[in-house]
Amino acid sequence: MQRIQENFDKQAFMKTLGAEIVSIEEGKVVIACTKNNSLTQQHGFFHAGVLSSIVDSACGYAALTMMPEDADVLSVEFKVNLLRPAMADKIIATGEVLKNGRTLVVAEGIVTDESGDKIFAKMVGTMFVKRN
Amino acid sequence: MQRIQENFDKQAFMKTLGAEIVSIEEGKVVIACTKNNSLTQQHGFFHAGVLSSIVDSACGYAALTMMPEDADVLSVEFKVNLLRPAMADKIIATGEVLKNGRTLVVAEGIVTDESGDKIFAKMVGTMFVKRN
Amino acid sequence: MQRIQENFDKQAFMKTLGAEIVSIEEGKVVIACTKNNSLTQQHGFFHAGVLSSIVDSACGYAALTMMPEDADVLSVEFKVNLLRPAMADKIIATGEVLKNGRTLVVAEGIVTDESGDKIFAKMVGTMFVKRN
Amino acid sequence: MQRIQENFDKQAFMKTLGAEIVSIEEGKVVIACTKNNSLTQQHGFFHAGVLSSIVDSACGYAALTMMPEDADVLSVEFKVNLLRPAMADKIIATGEVLKNGRTLVVAEGIVTDESGDKIFAKMVGTMFVKRN
Repeated sequence: MQRIQENFDKQAFMKTLGAEIVSIEEGKVVIACTKNNSLTQQHGFFHAGVLSSIVDSACGYAALTMMPEDADVLSVEFKVNLLRPAMADKIIATGEVLKNGRTLVVAEGIVTDESGDKIFAKMVGTMFVKRN
Repeated sequence: MQRIQENFDKQAFMKTLGAEIVSIEEGKVVIACTKNNSLTQQHGFFHAGVLSSIVDSACGYAALTMMPEDADVLSVEFKVNLLRPAMADKIIATGEVLKNGRTLVVAEGIVTDESGDKIFAKMVGTMFVKRN
Repeated sequence: MQRIQENFDKQAFMKTLGAEIVSIEEGKVVIACTKNNSLTQQHGFFHAGVLSSIVDSACGYAALTMMPEDADVLSVEFKVNLLRPAMADKIIATGEVLKNGRTLVVAEGIVTDESGDKIFAKMVGTMFVKRN
Repeated sequence: MQRIQENFDKQAFMKTLGAEIVSIEEGKVVIACTKNNSLTQQHGFFHAGVLSSIVDSACGYAALTMMPEDADVLSVEFKVNLLRPAMADKIIATGEVLKNGRTLVVAEGIVTDESGDKIFAKMVGTMFVKRN
């Protein structure tokens, strides 16, 4: 799963968010992000945009784990439901493949606190597989 | 529309993105974001997370323009369709209120290039009005 | 859970679809629908509109199980991902509450074949609780 | 635009809903549906499933107008925001293509009353183009 990490490292925006890959397995990727003042909304919690960005990435990389080596993955669309304010020092985004198709992959993800007890956001999205 | 700008200025994440409010009118807010290496994905384009973050903010603030002074707005959910890679030096997110309800506001938004000719993303979302 | 069944029986459209409640528990409702020529699309499979209608209902009723007796539930929005053509004699929609809030409930659902092995559709939606 | 009408006529479910094509132009299709007791929810209004079904169809056919003769269109996903109860004798669904891609088409649609003044629902969805 070297290429997942390499691809992730090329995403400057993930660095800007301080996001890091926690684990990679077939069809499932976990990304963590530690609280930092630069990531907050008006009440000092994680901005919804941060949650969306990392859960979309987790889902995209989950899809990529199931692709041929030379394939690339693009998000076609995603929807995020924000369940509660993300009051936490660290957030964990888990993306998992729901349907692995030849051209399209559907993945779902959640963003939780570190314990996994509190779900802050739920995402379902579609990824497009670009075979090179 | 002073309070929109003030609320926006409290969102540290918007500063991290280099996002700025371009215009505010009743039910419509425009936010711009200039390309910067810290905002890119693996191909050097704007990351989808940046697009989502600013268009969600534009929609949220569009909703806030129609609220009483002491109200606050929270995103309940949003869906983004990513129509093409955001190859541009500057992206413009326009959020507009579609339905202004007492408790819920539905807004839609687009992210375009500076000319407005190319649509990079389309969003529809629901905002919750918190009356204080 | 009498009132769930009663409410369901008032939905003439569920009768038109030949939909029936299979089970009701706290936070979870299952609805089944048997194939009938009147429910098909151009290739003879269940129409996506049928899948959407019953999974939205399953989610709405799942939300209603957690409400006070006199409350009513309205769908605010839902998103459906259609994973594969619904080639089956019977489809089963399962709706479950993901977040039970005072005003808003987020629920997710799937539509499967009778065995539950094949997922045809995945939904996530928001319900509004109307307290009477 | 003969083939749009022919394809529509093969969708038995559209007949069950009493839905009819009102107009077809390049990238835009309008479908109407007249109130009938078999289409209602518990309060006697059009069921959300009816709105979703016809606006998804309008969007799918809007996409099909832009395809080669032998292509077929499948809905990949759609999201519907339900803005207000559909209290009307007739509902009109208008689907329009937002982005016409080789493999994927993004379309948006609304469901209104006959005058077009009241928007009952807003949809954005993705269609997959199957070239035969």
